Amino acid sequence: MSPAFENLSPDELAAEHARLQQAYADLQATGLTLDLTRGKPAPAQLDLSNALLSLPGDGDFRDGTGTDVRNYGGLQGLPELRAIFGELLSIDPANLWAAGNASLEIMHDLVAFALLLGTNDSERPWRDEPAVKFLCPVPGYDRHFAIAEAYGIEMIPVTLHADGPDLDEVRAAVADPAVKGMWCVPTYANPTGAVYSEEVTRALLALETAAPDFRIVWDNAYAVHPLAEQCAPALPILELAAEEGHPNRVWTVASTSKITFAGAGVAFLGSSAENLAWYGNLYGKRSIGPDKVNQLRHLRFFGDAAGVRAHMEKHRQILAPKFDAVLEILDARLGGTGAATWTRPEGGYFISLDVVPGTARRVVELAKAAGIALTAAGATFPGGVDPRDENIRLAPSFPSADDVRTSMDGVATCVLLAALEARLAG
Amino acid sequence: MSPAFENLSPDELAAEHARLQQAYADLQATGLTLDLTRGKPAPAQLDLSNALLSLPGDGDFRDGTGTDVRNYGGLQGLPELRAIFGELLSIDPANLWAAGNASLEIMHDLVAFALLLGTNDSERPWRDEPAVKFLCPVPGYDRHFAIAEAYGIEMIPVTLHADGPDLDEVRAAVADPAVKGMWCVPTYANPTGAVYSEEVTRALLALETAAPDFRIVWDNAYAVHPLAEQCAPALPILELAAEEGHPNRVWTVASTSKITFAGAGVAFLGSSAENLAWYGNLYGKRSIGPDKVNQLRHLRFFGDAAGVRAHMEKHRQILAPKFDAVLEILDARLGGTGAATWTRPEGGYFISLDVVPGTARRVVELAKAAGIALTAAGATFPGGVDPRDENIRLAPSFPSADDVRTSMDGVATCVLLAALEARLAG
Repeated sequence: MSPAFENLSPDELAAEHARLQQAYADLQATGLTLDLTRGKPAPAQLDLSNALLSLPGDGDFRDGTGTDVRNYGGLQGLPELRAIFGELLSIDPANLWAAGNASLEIMHDLVAFALLLGTNDSERPWRDEPAVKFLCPVPGYDRHFAIAEAYGIEMIPVTLHADGPDLDEVRAAVADPAVKGMWCVPTYANPTGAVYSEEVTRALLALETAAPDFRIVWDNAYAVHPLAEQCAPALPILELAAEEGHPNRVWTVASTSKITFAGAGVAFLGSSAENLAWYGNLYGKRSIGPDKVNQLRHLRFFGDAAGVRAHMEKHRQILAPKFDAVLEILDARLGGTGAATWTRPEGGYFISLDVVPGTARRVVELAKAAGIALTAAGATFPGGVDPRDENIRLAPSFPSADDVRTSMDGVATCVLLAALEARLAG
Repeated sequence: MSPAFENLSPDELAAEHARLQQAYADLQATGLTLDLTRGKPAPAQLDLSNALLSLPGDGDFRDGTGTDVRNYGGLQGLPELRAIFGELLSIDPANLWAAGNASLEIMHDLVAFALLLGTNDSERPWRDEPAVKFLCPVPGYDRHFAIAEAYGIEMIPVTLHADGPDLDEVRAAVADPAVKGMWCVPTYANPTGAVYSEEVTRALLALETAAPDFRIVWDNAYAVHPLAEQCAPALPILELAAEEGHPNRVWTVASTSKITFAGAGVAFLGSSAENLAWYGNLYGKRSIGPDKVNQLRHLRFFGDAAGVRAHMEKHRQILAPKFDAVLEILDARLGGTGAATWTRPEGGYFISLDVVPGTARRVVELAKAAGIALTAAGATFPGGVDPRDENIRLAPSFPSADDVRTSMDGVATCVLLAALEARLAG
């Protein structure tokens, strides 16, 4: 373990700097090519779902209602699959539609439809408002921000605590009628692992907003993805929204991207009947319906909600040791140094690492030059700009556990070296 | 065969009317429930692709480049599948992307992206123009019109001849800078079966348009779907566009919806490199990539372009007798009566029936009351309004050949009765 730099004399600092420079040179000399950039499932995780490669199987093309899934139609998706995920997400299956292979697409379309025509609660198309703004709990998910950025939606960062967004900041922001929406990852948030408490959730649902058509994009991407033995319970978000007086406030999405195949799963949209009618009207113009054969394939594979949970336990057995490895190395190499803090997520795909302010980009640069690809510094903030230049998202799912260890040991060296450089410069 | 009404005396007309009323009463008494509304493949056609239900098969999850198709990524789709459809569509695979399960979705998104941000050749977002207009060859495809209508795009009907749209009408229309686009189904058009000639196609590509960002949506939905023994050749549309001086003019789409499974196929987008870069920028915000497992499934199923052609011959064997049955009954019952004219398509999914002007809605109403569902009169025109109330789209693919015969015999009775009613009233 490195010493806490603040306790070192100038000579000791210089010696530590020389030691770290040598460690970094040694790291570079090993010629790594490792990648911790994205939350991709590892091949061993994908293998868990290989039965899908030959499902639903010859002659199996009718769902429980007798629908021939090979043909057109059925915008809402297979009732039996909606029932399974309704149970897992605590959403009435009548309010949960099964769609294509990515919840990101649904989120994009919700925003695009609102921009072009307005929501069912809008006075006019969002595109015709003087400005449209979205609240962005930070650090957050870069693909959410990218959608907003593409369409000129102004993003307002709000602080994300371990139990959800800072309510004072949110309350102040929604007094602006231009604030039309908010991105949330309520369970094992990307990248901090935050789990929104029921208290914070209810407060978000109860908010009095200046905009009559304020929407929370409730991206429950990791709803059934614990790293700990117990999974955080799925709050019955639509019921809570109704109880708090804003039944149309929530657009919730989820998917099997990190349950079965990342590129060939099934996504879900849950919302109020009014919201679904609004969405369905345009979705029905856009589409001849989702891939129902893939939905049947998933139905056969899972069987029921317990089947999904049992399957997720297999993922956990693969993922948890990688996260443990990251935390073990961070503890061993950076604990007590004052050079970084990090989250200890109980689920999801990421660890959020905060390094010495002003050094995140340098750390990523040092790591890259040593063959370790990290998510770009700033990616977890709107516009790709972390005002404190301190946050780095670690994504340990894809590499092997050994590669995770090697990578993180290298990253720790880079964090320390950047911290010491900053101290010497400052 | 009924006599030509124009040659009948008033007494003869009255007798014929009584005879048709009785025939219609008999028709109603048989209690039919038949459906000729939509161009859906029949179960026997879907069965042709049942091997897909267990493909790609256990352990088969890498394409020819070694990509693990189960994971994220690969916005452009599988190179080998793009090569097969590039050959079939006469498009360089570099300019052809493989996407999700519906070309309709691609067309919607192209329009939505253009509205929100403008195309790569636009001066501003289409949404910021005083008006946006699309040319609609009529009769045409109702789902095209529905997208335009949803977003307030004004539709201008132009006459569709057997070899393509009326060029004089098109030339006059594109002098208006608000005319930004045009819907085309160039091969075996829905519903007339028109096949755009190279001459008309080149003229459309060469047009000098007031809008710098005029786009032709080249929906080649039936490119490899002949009913005749020979398939119309796929014009190398992107090469022709470049030759005619407007390389970015064309957005072309196609899909396997009527090749494999209607709801679980693969769609394609072909366009210039500039157009694809523009589309890809937004598509990449919207999506984590298409379902590559389904693309691999299709690749394994087809093998190569010859495999697709051989597969389409099996479809033809099922479809052609149904179309023959329609034509046989139309010839027998309506030929020489002056009560209708109809197309004799060499491919595609539809026959376009023109009845006595002013009677199409009445025919559909009569048929419905006799248990025969026809596509709504007017559906083939923008806004659902056929100004002459004469066109009816016949879709004989889904019912059995026997049901097609029974339906068409009933429809013929309705056509004659409506024609006679009109004559007696007029």
